[in-house]
Amino acid sequence: MRALIFDLDGTLVDTVYAHVFAWQRAFAEAGLAIDGWRIHRRIGMSGGLFVRAAARELGHGIDMAAAEALQQRHGELFREFLPERRPLPGAVELLKDLRSRNIAYGIATSGRRPEIDRSLEVLGIGEGVVVVERGDVPRAKPEPDLFIACQQRLGFAPSECYVVGDAVWDQLAARRAGILSVGLLSGGYGESELLSAGAFRVYTDPAELLRSLDELGLQP
Amino acid sequence: MRALIFDLDGTLVDTVYAHVFAWQRAFAEAGLAIDGWRIHRRIGMSGGLFVRAAARELGHGIDMAAAEALQQRHGELFREFLPERRPLPGAVELLKDLRSRNIAYGIATSGRRPEIDRSLEVLGIGEGVVVVERGDVPRAKPEPDLFIACQQRLGFAPSECYVVGDAVWDQLAARRAGILSVGLLSGGYGESELLSAGAFRVYTDPAELLRSLDELGLQP
Repeated sequence: MRALIFDLDGTLVDTVYAHVFAWQRAFAEAGLAIDGWRIHRRIGMSGGLFVRAAARELGHGIDMAAAEALQQRHGELFREFLPERRPLPGAVELLKDLRSRNIAYGIATSGRRPEIDRSLEVLGIGEGVVVVERGDVPRAKPEPDLFIACQQRLGFAPSECYVVGDAVWDQLAARRAGILSVGLLSGGYGESELLSAGAFRVYTDPAELLRSLDELGLQP
Repeated sequence: MRALIFDLDGTLVDTVYAHVFAWQRAFAEAGLAIDGWRIHRRIGMSGGLFVRAAARELGHGIDMAAAEALQQRHGELFREFLPERRPLPGAVELLKDLRSRNIAYGIATSGRRPEIDRSLEVLGIGEGVVVVERGDVPRAKPEPDLFIACQQRLGFAPSECYVVGDAVWDQLAARRAGILSVGLLSGGYGESELLSAGAFRVYTDPAELLRSLDELGLQP
């Protein structure tokens, strides 16, 4: 095994609950009441897909312009609620450890620049790191596009990579890309939700993954 | 089986994610960074216990005054973030159905008046309903005090009641009170977390519980 492909929100930065609450308020402002836990369980899928799925569940059709307005408002509220980004415990140290051992890694996120820039910055992810974001591929998770693009840019075969992600969508997209996946609890999913979605191991957070890297058989 | 004892936040009203985010901001303002998912998994336990447990986990001792200031600030942020309360799908109809069939029910919550007043109001819970709140008992969940007090005030034996709750703390406190419990996913726990904590059934939300009441063998 040669490379790790990381999701961002809930996997390396502690942003999931701010995203949930920002979505909930954005929907509420538009007169669309949607349960917090249903939003939570959709974080990490494409924003456009999420908005349309949520609206459909509420029995409202939603046009492209309204969906874009909701995404825009979510972004504003998110930045207002969470002006700073905080790396999850062990995230910075994990990436540093991988660099020092020459183990390849990249980022593949349903988030979008410039929204993700602050997160990359606090993680110390600079120019040299492969970052695949929403704008780089036609379809976000649970489609496999983000992970396939990242794996190709890293230059390894799918069978030589792991995806690391906190959401069921990461595990599904990884399976569809033919890549093994590892789950983290730091996005608020339960362990067995991640296991049933296909994670072959589940760790608490990046700190526990760092302590457990030897279980993954990675080499430079 | 004769009576249902309901938790409030995440079980009948959609408040869990606002609580999580309000706690996270209150801790952050005090210079205490705590992961969102760790807060989420502690919602529903006593506020005082929660603050002390969180501070201990961060390696900070915390005195009574600081713990109270954090709880105070959480309450302010919560009311600012979520000025209205929204019943979860089916909650109002479920309580109405129980009343129309003369099946007894009460509320047992780690929340406190006046913070819970708006939630009770939107649920149509008036003077006649047994409500046991944090201030009524010495110890909140996962201690069994709230559920025991509610069961006694309803006038039924523990073996004739069900607890309905969204959190692991509800299931634990119910077991300690000798009361069977039912889990709901509407607080954002995974199904198997609730099952392993002791829930003998898990439903999506109050709406699914209402459709499934016959599975509980309740009678007036």
